[in-house]
Formats: sequence, C-alpha cells, structure tokens
Amino acid sequence: MPVGNVELVKLNPVKGIKIGITEAHVRYAGRKDLTVFDIIAGANTAVVTTQNQFCAAPVQLLREFIAKDSPRYLIVNTGNANAATGEDGKQRAKTTCVALAEKTGVAAEQVLPYSTGVIGETLPADKIIAGLDSALANLSDDNWLGAAHSIMTTDTTPKGHSEIVEIDGTTYTVTGISKGAGMIRPNMATMLGFVATDANIEKSLLQNILTDTVNQSFNRITVDGDTSTNDCCTLIATGQVGEMIDSENHPHYQAIYQAIKNVMIRIAQLIVRDGEGATKFMTVKVTGGETSEECAKIAYEVAHSPLVKTAFFASDPNWGRILAAVGKAGVMLDQSKVAVSLDDVRICERGGLAQDYTEARGSEVMKRPEITIHIELGRGQASDTVYTCDLSYEYVKINADYRS
Amino acid sequence: MPVGNVELVKLNPVKGIKIGITEAHVRYAGRKDLTVFDIIAGANTAVVTTQNQFCAAPVQLLREFIAKDSPRYLIVNTGNANAATGEDGKQRAKTTCVALAEKTGVAAEQVLPYSTGVIGETLPADKIIAGLDSALANLSDDNWLGAAHSIMTTDTTPKGHSEIVEIDGTTYTVTGISKGAGMIRPNMATMLGFVATDANIEKSLLQNILTDTVNQSFNRITVDGDTSTNDCCTLIATGQVGEMIDSENHPHYQAIYQAIKNVMIRIAQLIVRDGEGATKFMTVKVTGGETSEECAKIAYEVAHSPLVKTAFFASDPNWGRILAAVGKAGVMLDQSKVAVSLDDVRICERGGLAQDYTEARGSEVMKRPEITIHIELGRGQASDTVYTCDLSYEYVKINADYRS
Repeated sequence: MPVGNVELVKLNPVKGIKIGITEAHVRYAGRKDLTVFDIIAGANTAVVTTQNQFCAAPVQLLREFIAKDSPRYLIVNTGNANAATGEDGKQRAKTTCVALAEKTGVAAEQVLPYSTGVIGETLPADKIIAGLDSALANLSDDNWLGAAHSIMTTDTTPKGHSEIVEIDGTTYTVTGISKGAGMIRPNMATMLGFVATDANIEKSLLQNILTDTVNQSFNRITVDGDTSTNDCCTLIATGQVGEMIDSENHPHYQAIYQAIKNVMIRIAQLIVRDGEGATKFMTVKVTGGETSEECAKIAYEVAHSPLVKTAFFASDPNWGRILAAVGKAGVMLDQSKVAVSLDDVRICERGGLAQDYTEARGSEVMKRPEITIHIELGRGQASDTVYTCDLSYEYVKINADYRS
Repeated sequence: MPVGNVELVKLNPVKGIKIGITEAHVRYAGRKDLTVFDIIAGANTAVVTTQNQFCAAPVQLLREFIAKDSPRYLIVNTGNANAATGEDGKQRAKTTCVALAEKTGVAAEQVLPYSTGVIGETLPADKIIAGLDSALANLSDDNWLGAAHSIMTTDTTPKGHSEIVEIDGTTYTVTGISKGAGMIRPNMATMLGFVATDANIEKSLLQNILTDTVNQSFNRITVDGDTSTNDCCTLIATGQVGEMIDSENHPHYQAIYQAIKNVMIRIAQLIVRDGEGATKFMTVKVTGGETSEECAKIAYEVAHSPLVKTAFFASDPNWGRILAAVGKAGVMLDQSKVAVSLDDVRICERGGLAQDYTEARGSEVMKRPEITIHIELGRGQASDTVYTCDLSYEYVKINADYRS
C-alpha cells in the first residue's frame, strides 16, 4: 500500500507525443508490458542515465544513439532489464530498434530502447518485435495513464503528474510518468521517468533543465540505497506551442522550469510513496551546513540507515539512531550545535535531549504517516533534502520473493 | 540463532589481567551488566575508538584519559550507551571512574569507561557505583567467559577467542572478547572488543598492531552499515611473559602478531555470525582491483545492499543484484572483464552469464549457510575482504521491537 495521497491528476496530452501500449508477454501474460512513444519530428529530447557501471544494454545503446540523431520513437519493455547480458543483450536491444525503425521509416538510431525488470536474463526480442504492430495501432495522444500502468514492475500504483501553465496568453502543458519501487537510489536519473512538454525549448537548455530538476527530484529519493542498472529519465520538448525558449532570460522560462520541476518532484516522490513495503513517507531536511553536498550526504546517511528506517516502521521515537546516522557521515560536527526535530517536535539540541521533549510527544509524532526529519547542523547556510520511506517486514518479503 | 560454528574455545587467562562482573541493574534485573578489568601496573594499553561524530560520552572521556595516563582499570556497563547525553553524560561517566579510582587507589584518569546499550537515555551512574564493590570482590584471572556474557546486549551468543603461542621456549597467551549484533559497520573499531596478551610489547608498536589488525577484522565487518556511537576496541599487553618486543624485527613479533590477528578476526566474525536476524554468513572477497581501497569499497557496496542481503536470505540466485551493487561503487569498470563466483560456482563472466552456469547450480550454492562471494575485477593485483550476513524478517522485527 503506497503512503499518503498517490492519486493521479488528469494526465494531459502533450501535442507532438503519441503513445501506444500492448501485451508482448515479455515475462507475464495478461498485462501490458510494451510501450511505444511516437515523438513528432523537430522535437528536442534530453536524457540522463544511470551512473551504475553495470549499466544495462539498452542504456549503453541509448547513449550511442542519442549522440548521433534526434529520437523519434522510444520503445519500453517491462519484465526484463536486459542488464548484465553482455554483447548479446546489446544486439538484442538493437534488433528491436531496427524493427521499429523499419516499420515507421526512421533511422534505427532514432529509436531509443528502455528496459526494466529482472537483471541477467536474456531479452525476448522476438516477442517485443511481434508486439510492435499492435503497439503502433494503439498510438494515441491521450494514452499517458495507460503508459503509467504499462511501465510498472513491482510498483503497486501508477505514477504520473501534469501541469498546465499559461503565460502571456500561451498555454503550455507538462506531463510526466515514472515507475520504480525498489533498487531506488538514483544517481543522475531513475529507472524510467518520461516527461514531455509542448514548449519549444532549445536543446542544450533542455538538457540543463533536465539535469537541474533531476538533481532536485529523482536524485533526492531513496528506498533502499541500491542504484539500478537501468535508470533513465527522459525529457521531451515537442516545440508545438509558443516561440523558441533558448535562454534562462526568456520571459516564459521560469514558469516552464517550475512546471517541469513540479512534475519531476511529484513523480519522484510517488516512487518513494510506493517504496517496497513502505508504511511511512519521510522527508529528511538538513539545514545549517557549510555546503549542500555535506547536507545531502548526511540526509542520505539518515535515509539509508536500516536502524532509522525500522524505528520509523515501529513508530518508536528511538531518535539516538538518527544521531548515530548523522554522526557517521564523515562531516566534522560540533555535537553541541546540532538540533533535530520531527515535524514540530524538537527532540534533540546541544548534543542531548531537548528541554521540552517527552516520550509521549515523540510517540505521537512517530505515528504520523508522513514525517519531516529536520536536522540543523549549526555550521553555515547550506541545505538539502532527501525523500525516503521506512523499512518493514514487507520490504524483506517482497525482495525475498521477487523473481518467483 | 547465530550462523555456523560459534562455539568458544577455552578462554585462557592472561597473566596481569583480572576481571570482575556483577549485576548493577543498569537496565534489566537478573543479568550481569557491569564488568571491571583490573590491569597490572606497567602494562601497555592501546585503544581505537569510533569515528562517529556523535561519539558517546565515555568515548570522549576515554580519549582524554588515555592521553594522560596508563590505564589500570576498565569499567564497562551494558544497557545504556550514554550517547547523545551532552555534558551531563560526560560528568556521569566521570563519577563512575572517580568512584572506582577511590576504591582502588589509582588516579581517575587511569580508569577507562565503556558503555553500550540504548542511545539518548541518562546513565544511572549511582547504580553502577553501587555495584563496584561487588565487581571488585569478584575479580579473578579466569573470568573471560563471564565477561563475554556480561558485555552482551542484543547478542544471542557470547564472543571470544584465545590462542597460545610458543616461541623459543616462551609461551604467550592472547585472549579476547567482543560484543555486538546490530549497528555494526565499525569505522576504526567496533562496539567493545577487549583483547589482552601477556607479552611485553612496546607501547607505540602495540598501537600499530591494534590499528593494523582492526583494519583486517573489526573494520571489515558489517551487519547493517550503521556505525555505532560507542565502538571501542582495546588491546592490552601486560608484559608478564618474555622480553620486550619493541620492533617488527624482534624474533617473536610475527608469531604474536599472527595470534592477535587470529583472535581479532575470530571475535569480529562472531559478531557477524550473530548479526541481528542473520541466517547466512557471507564473505565478500574482491580481487583484481587497482587498489585495496577500491576493492573494499566494492565489497562494502555488495555487503550493504538490502537487495543482495534479502536475495541471500531467500536463497535466490538473483545474482544481477550483486552486479548492480558492484556497479554503483563509483569505480570505473570494464564489464567484460568482471567475473563473479559464489563459492565454486562461476555465475558471471564477460559482463554476462557464465557458460556453465545453471539455475540449479546457483540454487544449490545459495542454500549453503556460509558463502563466499568472489568478485574479480580484472583491473590489477589488489584485493580486500569484508564479512557480512543476510537481511531477514527477524532483523526488522528485532529493530522494530528493540527498546521494549
């Protein structure tokens, strides 16, 4: 069961993007598992991919292809990650791109491949290719919700968000979807985020926007600290609405940037809310650091600590575990200047228990399904925030049972 | 239930060390929770302590004291970590040292304090002081096994080891005990290891031996990646046997060093075998690296990965998770040169599945209670090894219930 409000708003169509989904039986029967994005000619596309050295075959191929040509199609399968599959895996991914390119009259390099699912098994490229006609026949501009479903693996809920911005009489749309629930500690991207806008954004600026907003969204979430081999986040600007936005000084830039950032943060947080076995959604906010890097480091230590995560699962205000996690981040701290609060309850200050703290107040706040852990370091002005969830029996069950 | 053979050998007395244990009711009634070590005058003592910035009050005090004088007594309580207790915690620890010093006629600085248990609660110094007479009356040179019991917290089994070395007609004894089962990813030391030898080892050489052997034992184990606020490992050379060993060139040095290292590794591994909820003991061996640092880094990524740990709990040869963990260590790798084996079963080579691997062989090896994960990087000659355990329902249960 995901944590908190995970209801989707209406996922508005984005002019210039059509989506087709179908059942290709990659791993399971009776579920949509193949998704094709059709991108209008002239659109700009930016991608960030996993920093995992064992990056999957489709990620390797995607990096080569996008360096050569403008993407016209994205082909996405679930059920098989095509990772740790060597040269054979890369060839198999390529045959699916070639097949789609031939059916649609574009170059093979204009088809970007994405895979998610089990690592280390052979990609059934023939099944994917056999499903392409059906996916293409299904192409529609109002298929974002269907795609949010068809890219799921261990997710229990589809993930998407959409914003409409009106500036000076021009109406822009930004819509995005994501998937992921485990192996989540993205590094430069997460396993499958697709965001599109109909705005006309210059290519290098688009890449900057993607990198920047990913650093505030997908790169600030963690479920279990495990960085996937297949992480990819893709941002498409179809250029169907408004004039060219080619710099941060363009009058429409800030509004579009904010809309993209809002979509990114929402679909990233939805992954944590649907974290495997999650019963609580925690925001770890670190302030008063010398640099935002050290704040992020401390926030991640807290967010990754199994002892902190199990204490939150148990609603046990065992806050010493938070301090132990803060202390192991390798940042020189003056204990007497550090303060820790859970929502509005100050638990620790001057290296010890806060004056007005009581176990009753601690227990009350720990029972909440959404909690902000605020750690003030007293060293400077920098801050950073990471989103995470607790660690429950269910996490162990899901990951001890997965693959079956 | 601890994993594999955790039976203790006879813990031989060490000339110059007496140990007294008693019930001080620090947290629970009906169990020994206060341990006093009496060290003969003239002995040398070396200590390494946690690198956690929220190091506990006794750790802070211990560092001050050992810089000033030679230790004559160690005072160890369980049930309360006296961590995150601010200046008051330090004063409380000090009063226990002062009380023991007055009873025994040594300086307060010659009494080193150690605490383990819950973080953030006030140390009942009065109860500890009230227990001192009983502990002193109990002093005996054959009390190591009793001490191994009385320093336990969530441990399910006492931990100790002993070796006797004879060189050129001189017989040396090395005996050590440890405790710990959770919040285990020591950084320069672990939560309470005490090792003593009757050899006469020069003070700075003793410190070198401690640092070196800790780096191969306590600093290479992890249960949950959480570094404790109270980690301390202490090595005492009482100087009651043999001539002074003052350099690595002394003819007895290598044999003594090896005996100390053996004791260190055994009592460190016993902590992992008793890891909270552990059902499997895993040795993560990384070879073929450019530096031992990068090998250790990769080994820790694998050892800390919740996905790897739950796969081992489930005996599921989901080896893609091992590769994903290897790949996220931030070490540049050529996938085609990496090979991974579980014991004698090669599972992965050239970035994909090994030729002779079968799921049946993978399943068979994953069922074993003790498994070596061997990762060959194909980059160089360096290697390193880390010991860890799996992640089970029981781990979550223990840590969701602890404090109650």
